[in-house]
Amino acid sequence: MKLLRVGTAGAERPALLDAEGVLRDLSGVVPDIDGALLADEAALGRVRAAAGDLPALDATGLRIGPPVARIGKIVCIGLNYHDHARETGAEPPSEPVIFFKAADTVVGAYDTVLVPRGSTKTDWEVELAVVIGRTARYLESHEDALACVAGYAVSHDVSEREFQLERGGTWDKGKNCETFNPLGPWLVTADEVPDPQKLGLRLWVNGELKQDGTTAEQIFSVAEVVRYVSQFMTLYPGDVINTGTPAGVALGEPEPKPFLRAGDVVELEIEGLGRQRQEFKGA
Amino acid sequence: MKLLRVGTAGAERPALLDAEGVLRDLSGVVPDIDGALLADEAALGRVRAAAGDLPALDATGLRIGPPVARIGKIVCIGLNYHDHARETGAEPPSEPVIFFKAADTVVGAYDTVLVPRGSTKTDWEVELAVVIGRTARYLESHEDALACVAGYAVSHDVSEREFQLERGGTWDKGKNCETFNPLGPWLVTADEVPDPQKLGLRLWVNGELKQDGTTAEQIFSVAEVVRYVSQFMTLYPGDVINTGTPAGVALGEPEPKPFLRAGDVVELEIEGLGRQRQEFKGA
Repeated sequence: MKLLRVGTAGAERPALLDAEGVLRDLSGVVPDIDGALLADEAALGRVRAAAGDLPALDATGLRIGPPVARIGKIVCIGLNYHDHARETGAEPPSEPVIFFKAADTVVGAYDTVLVPRGSTKTDWEVELAVVIGRTARYLESHEDALACVAGYAVSHDVSEREFQLERGGTWDKGKNCETFNPLGPWLVTADEVPDPQKLGLRLWVNGELKQDGTTAEQIFSVAEVVRYVSQFMTLYPGDVINTGTPAGVALGEPEPKPFLRAGDVVELEIEGLGRQRQEFKGA
Repeated sequence: MKLLRVGTAGAERPALLDAEGVLRDLSGVVPDIDGALLADEAALGRVRAAAGDLPALDATGLRIGPPVARIGKIVCIGLNYHDHARETGAEPPSEPVIFFKAADTVVGAYDTVLVPRGSTKTDWEVELAVVIGRTARYLESHEDALACVAGYAVSHDVSEREFQLERGGTWDKGKNCETFNPLGPWLVTADEVPDPQKLGLRLWVNGELKQDGTTAEQIFSVAEVVRYVSQFMTLYPGDVINTGTPAGVALGEPEPKPFLRAGDVVELEIEGLGRQRQEFKGA
């Protein structure tokens, strides 16, 4: 299933995009799409059973919000693609690198992204997001890890490289600016993604293809990332993991690096998970 | 006012500790203590006005939960005391070091803390927590920054030093283990803390005094931290900032460093903000 949330920011209602591409109203079946729903097999079963009979929604002019409400935490994996580690001049990590994004950075797939005040190094990163549906704590196997995944979505891990790398401390300083995590347009349930390590990811800036990668290049697979993270912290339904970005970010280009400015338009997509488009504006 | 939340985990109700030390039930006045309440001057006014007439609660055997529900994010400031920077061998930072704790690590002041599986370097850190009551975004002055502070609380920034420092990536890996952020027992509203830079902080392990500091030693004051953080991310009502720890952590002691183990008891207090006590157990 493709689950999404439509409507004005803060007042979204749950919806489903059916196999014919028709948007259908889920608000008569479940109150919202959040960790509680994703952990509730019975409620998900009701959604599946009702899918054919749901009233169609007129998508014209309808905003698409983030596909998950009340996200708990967003765990991010750094330098998780061989090609991206190379372009940043970093050694491929021997175990996953973890940093955080605050859930309040999440916006919809087509919402405006704000270039922070004082920023000269705002950068793009297309990423495969994993949405957790079952509590993950000290998992032992990759099979157990994948059983905790409710679904997948496109995530844009917008980053400010000066704040991240040149202002002291951890990367978090350049990862948590307002609007820095467009998510969606929809959550694709895990049953429709038979192999998360075979997904193409692409990103364009002002129409120019910048990233063209595949999750086959991930140093640590989705299953390994979930298993690994669960050794250090507990993942709860409604948590999100951004699993890293392939090569092709501005930071990896020769000087003068083409960092983002107000007026730029970024589009990104992952095979089978949909497409995003954001216009950048000044904060 | 001293605001707190009492009852079993997940079912706490709001309460107030009055000037005579009597616990009073706030559940007839406000639904909970959270960002929405802290941002609502009118509701806080109703709490103040009702304070004298609230029914007393029998505190016997009553659990004290975290004093704020639905915390958004927890921003932490690293190496923010001159004496702590010295003991860890780090240069005092030229600007605040930021890392994150997930809100799901928060437990009550007397709850059990779990030593993570595989941990050999679990460490303590008493910290002054700042609770945000007004949205803070690109603040210009220390006065504006302090106006965004709803109140203060004792925070225990429990840390696993191997996970934090020896496993690659950012500090977040050793800061987000389950139960790693006891908070409270209460939130003291900002009007009762005339100078947050004059508070004594103390922490004991198994009765032995380990940390005995003062917020006068902070490299970056509360006002500067809030102003600074607001340049990189937006702070919302219900967000928390852990403002760093003074000297005296296990990491700063000579070998063999006395890291925490199951069975250890940690007590901590901040002048005017109350006291915590946690027993450590295996995860």
